[in-house]
Amino acid sequence: MVNPIACLLVIGNEVLSGRTQDANVKFIATRLGEIGIALREVRIIPDVAATIIATLNECRARFDHVFTTGGIGPTHDDITSECVAAAFGVPWEPHPQAWEMMQRGYKSGEFNAARQRMATMPRGASLIANAISIAPGFSIGNVHVMAGVPRIMQSMFDSLAPTLAGGPPIISRAVHALALLEGRIAEGLAGVQAEFPELDVGSYPFYRVSGNGVALVVKGTDVAMAEAAVAKITDLIEQLGLVPIQGEPPAA
Amino acid sequence: MVNPIACLLVIGNEVLSGRTQDANVKFIATRLGEIGIALREVRIIPDVAATIIATLNECRARFDHVFTTGGIGPTHDDITSECVAAAFGVPWEPHPQAWEMMQRGYKSGEFNAARQRMATMPRGASLIANAISIAPGFSIGNVHVMAGVPRIMQSMFDSLAPTLAGGPPIISRAVHALALLEGRIAEGLAGVQAEFPELDVGSYPFYRVSGNGVALVVKGTDVAMAEAAVAKITDLIEQLGLVPIQGEPPAA
Repeated sequence: MVNPIACLLVIGNEVLSGRTQDANVKFIATRLGEIGIALREVRIIPDVAATIIATLNECRARFDHVFTTGGIGPTHDDITSECVAAAFGVPWEPHPQAWEMMQRGYKSGEFNAARQRMATMPRGASLIANAISIAPGFSIGNVHVMAGVPRIMQSMFDSLAPTLAGGPPIISRAVHALALLEGRIAEGLAGVQAEFPELDVGSYPFYRVSGNGVALVVKGTDVAMAEAAVAKITDLIEQLGLVPIQGEPPAA
Repeated sequence: MVNPIACLLVIGNEVLSGRTQDANVKFIATRLGEIGIALREVRIIPDVAATIIATLNECRARFDHVFTTGGIGPTHDDITSECVAAAFGVPWEPHPQAWEMMQRGYKSGEFNAARQRMATMPRGASLIANAISIAPGFSIGNVHVMAGVPRIMQSMFDSLAPTLAGGPPIISRAVHALALLEGRIAEGLAGVQAEFPELDVGSYPFYRVSGNGVALVVKGTDVAMAEAAVAKITDLIEQLGLVPIQGEPPAA
């Protein structure tokens, strides 16, 4: 059984300028893996219409799902929604349900022109509920448009996730060892990867207060196969005279 | 005077799976801005040769500089270097200077086949010094290949930065206000952006223990112009009956 593949577009000058540390990639990547959708590419792009439209059209053709974060607020630099309409070649117009919801959410006279832009969407969009603030996200075709503010994005993702058809969950098993050097285990590890081509075997050095070492991480959809690969890697570590420790290394 | 434009390729399954929180984008974006190179796109891509090669060739044609992080270690999943050679259509072969340096860095017999891969580079590569570990990065043409481990990447970037021809530094000026809502300032802010098209005016809500509000951030290469724009935004905040505070909001 195969996993659908996805691309994430992080839209916003603030990430590209270094002002803002992205916090959405890790959340979305992790949650997609749990529902069996493989995140295969992330692009961080600026608030430039031509770039957003071209990237949307390239990626929605190449991937089963395209997720976007950022650029759906009320200010002049929030242009994601109108760019999605342009990419799909459909009108960008008031969405009746979003409009009604937002009109109700603001006090009389406060649903101004800037805020009305947040209720303006590509024709045919279906809403993504948002439990944190007033403006919803939306999906159109295989493109899912969410806010950039992490807690709002997370609320939208929670609404969206149950509607996405995934594959078998992508699971992870790890073993690590202190004082291990990648160059010593590399040859054996390549053998394990060759023996289990369906799995993804990764090697990640870590530098912690508790010590340095390497984490070996196996990902795939077959738990028994992943555990068999970890058992082989555990043997490799022992053959080097080191102590294998199951799981990921401590966080600090 | 124009700023050269750059793209960053973050190469590694571990970021796409959500295992690892990227820490390199913010560092590289910030440092590039200081030397007057505008980071215009980031792509996070997997350890898949066809993807790496195609992305390298697309991006090195479109951008003045392409930076890569990740995939230059000794293990089977470290394939960036050979993919760069394939993208440039040059042999991937022992780099005499890197080879000699690494041979000297390891004890007798420890410079094994896996480690020799780290001294194997595209023909014509020039080395990027690394003060942290033994293996160097390298540049070829407009592509600069660095490690994924943040402290090693940072050391390589420090070596590389003085060799890069930049433009005028990209500077930032900010003002923020507690209790400000984007929807109230959006119209006035669009006017400021229209008045200063050479600048990049951004609006970023914040949610802090110390209070919620919006930060308005102006970026560009002309300090006087940026300060004039911030003065206009400061007036807008006062007209809304709120208190403008110069600079970015507190971190927590």
